[in-house]
Amino acid sequence: MTNTNTQDYKLTQTMLRIKDPAVSIPFYRDVLGMTLLDRYDFDSMEFSLYFLAYENGLVGEPPAAGPAKVVWVFNQIGTIELTHNWGTEADNDFGGYHSGNEEPKGFGHIGITVPDVYAACERFDELGVEYVKRPDDGAMKGLAFIKDPDGYWIEVLSAEGTSNIITSAVVGN
Amino acid sequence: MTNTNTQDYKLTQTMLRIKDPAVSIPFYRDVLGMTLLDRYDFDSMEFSLYFLAYENGLVGEPPAAGPAKVVWVFNQIGTIELTHNWGTEADNDFGGYHSGNEEPKGFGHIGITVPDVYAACERFDELGVEYVKRPDDGAMKGLAFIKDPDGYWIEVLSAEGTSNIITSAVVGN
Repeated sequence: MTNTNTQDYKLTQTMLRIKDPAVSIPFYRDVLGMTLLDRYDFDSMEFSLYFLAYENGLVGEPPAAGPAKVVWVFNQIGTIELTHNWGTEADNDFGGYHSGNEEPKGFGHIGITVPDVYAACERFDELGVEYVKRPDDGAMKGLAFIKDPDGYWIEVLSAEGTSNIITSAVVGN
Repeated sequence: MTNTNTQDYKLTQTMLRIKDPAVSIPFYRDVLGMTLLDRYDFDSMEFSLYFLAYENGLVGEPPAAGPAKVVWVFNQIGTIELTHNWGTEADNDFGGYHSGNEEPKGFGHIGITVPDVYAACERFDELGVEYVKRPDDGAMKGLAFIKDPDGYWIEVLSAEGTSNIITSAVVGN
């Protein structure tokens, strides 16, 4: 019988392709507040991977750079893996990546839970972040969607605010 | 000055649209081994949300169903949010969702770290899972990609195996 071991499985990454790390890394690090855990350059295949995560969710202290650090990175839950295929950042013929929210649809968004959506968006406004939905647009108040530099959607929500929205919407179910 | 509070931000979800929850929920639960945390039906907007995660990464005990449980769900790091727009499962004209890995590309995959990729894939074989890349295909040995029922890619990796691949590939960087 196969040893299933699914009890030890972990959802460790969501991978998104990016056009230009010089734009995307500052966005995920400085605007969203994530930490760049590590970067891997695959010279022969001409791509680089950037792993980012929120520090408050990390398990264990990061080892010094090297194999043990890679093991540590790939054991962290909830990282973002940004893939940069070299050259897109300077290729005028590159049409950009697909957010999944126009046809053909698929991937929807990543979601970030914050203590206060309005305070978060006030700061995003100051930083010139582009919105899909401001917190008070539409029927679902207190819930925002912003865009990352490639156009991927990022939901900005609070656990309590979302609980209120869902409790109102699904009442009676 | 705005209170930034990014130190309390959490990456809590990755949202993927699914055609049929009667197919996708058993896949994520029984094949991948995740737990269905909660389900929300939005009757007036005709969609449902399903949140799944690995139990080993959950923080705190789930409250009984109700508003406190929703708060708990939206505070968990690394959940999958599956969105079902009602009707797609029985719509012969529905063309399916886009994985992000054919043109136009964008989203790449979610990644699951497992103790043993070969043991995991032996079990996936028994369960009839479709592959993009078996562990020994291609140059990167010990790393697999499978497909979920909508065709989204799921990387199956081990932290140690990935460390070996990356350490070999990026040597000298």
